[in-house]
Amino acid sequence: MEPRLFVASFPCYGRKMPLQRISVVSGRDVAYRLAVAEGVHRALVETLGVPQDDRFQIVTEHAAGSLFCTPSYMGIAHGRAPVFIQITLSRGRTVAQKKAFYAKVADLLLETARVPRADVVVNLVEVEKEDWSFGDGLAQYALEPTEKPA
Amino acid sequence: MEPRLFVASFPCYGRKMPLQRISVVSGRDVAYRLAVAEGVHRALVETLGVPQDDRFQIVTEHAAGSLFCTPSYMGIAHGRAPVFIQITLSRGRTVAQKKAFYAKVADLLLETARVPRADVVVNLVEVEKEDWSFGDGLAQYALEPTEKPA
Amino acid sequence: MEPRLFVASFPCYGRKMPLQRISVVSGRDVAYRLAVAEGVHRALVETLGVPQDDRFQIVTEHAAGSLFCTPSYMGIAHGRAPVFIQITLSRGRTVAQKKAFYAKVADLLLETARVPRADVVVNLVEVEKEDWSFGDGLAQYALEPTEKPA
Repeated sequence: MEPRLFVASFPCYGRKMPLQRISVVSGRDVAYRLAVAEGVHRALVETLGVPQDDRFQIVTEHAAGSLFCTPSYMGIAHGRAPVFIQITLSRGRTVAQKKAFYAKVADLLLETARVPRADVVVNLVEVEKEDWSFGDGLAQYALEPTEKPA
Repeated sequence: MEPRLFVASFPCYGRKMPLQRISVVSGRDVAYRLAVAEGVHRALVETLGVPQDDRFQIVTEHAAGSLFCTPSYMGIAHGRAPVFIQITLSRGRTVAQKKAFYAKVADLLLETARVPRADVVVNLVEVEKEDWSFGDGLAQYALEPTEKPA
Repeated sequence: MEPRLFVASFPCYGRKMPLQRISVVSGRDVAYRLAVAEGVHRALVETLGVPQDDRFQIVTEHAAGSLFCTPSYMGIAHGRAPVFIQITLSRGRTVAQKKAFYAKVADLLLETARVPRADVVVNLVEVEKEDWSFGDGLAQYALEPTEKPA
């Protein structure tokens, strides 16, 4: 059975890549942004099986008046420094995995960047494995055997 | 029938959340950006059933040469100050609802921010209800009964 | 057969529109950003059938420490000036077309902007034809005959 398991799991390995967009308020120091970025990535690694070195993140700062967050929605009160996280990733995570990610990222951002748990706002966007190229002009997750690099 | 309708509509209430990305040219004043942001949100509220307090918006400014908009495409002539709007929202709106949103947002941005109707460029991206967490580490739109906050 | 082919391809013409988000490092000159933007658009035109005048691009600059790119992932070594490209486009391209796009955009960015092929990172997000309005408040790709402009 070992070989079959290997065959079955190998394609999954190649479908992890997320593109992470993280929006924070401006005026914080670099350490804050680094902590937020690190926390989001660590949550992906720990809950969604993203490899440690599969890290592609775009962090943007926004002045007051450019990051609108409702003061309160469905019972959750938001502060003045929300973190909006939008992650595009390959389809296939279960609802339970997504929930584990939301919980973990809220925990980690509180721990490492002092972001209140209420202010961690997350959205996932799922795409297909052929929707990625992370360099060299190849669709790394949808290669035919003949396209594999030597 | 009342209870059934209630049961049927309640889950929908919890699937409204959009994440709104709005890109405008730089050099305008704060009032312009506020008017654009308010207009986009109001159009969502009025045509797609988004609750008034379900407001999460990222507004970015872009210098000339960073916001490329074709001078003309399929008969629509564009000016030098387009507004690009990309909204991620839960799946399930009808084509008619989407069309009503496009019409309303063009009307409102003209009225409140003097954006020519030709220059309101919109894209929607649909996701699932479990793809959202708007705080506290929970997937608010995909909670099991046992996960509900007390 | 000619007429049938024409009939079959005509509706596709109206579903091409992409929204292009391009993230580059800050500190480069305008010519660099123009070359990158032009290269991405040209690759879309040449491989995915996007009309030349269907150009809607948002280019953003990011300081060091805001654009995180893994030093190496799955054997591809990345430098300090990656280009992240996220393109939202209508569903329907084949895997082969997507692969042709990845190869072409890597070639063109190397040629016109000296971006190493390893540093061209691409993600596609597919949406439906009714998810677009490129002006005037209309869903141009999902119009009923009665909605067509005169």
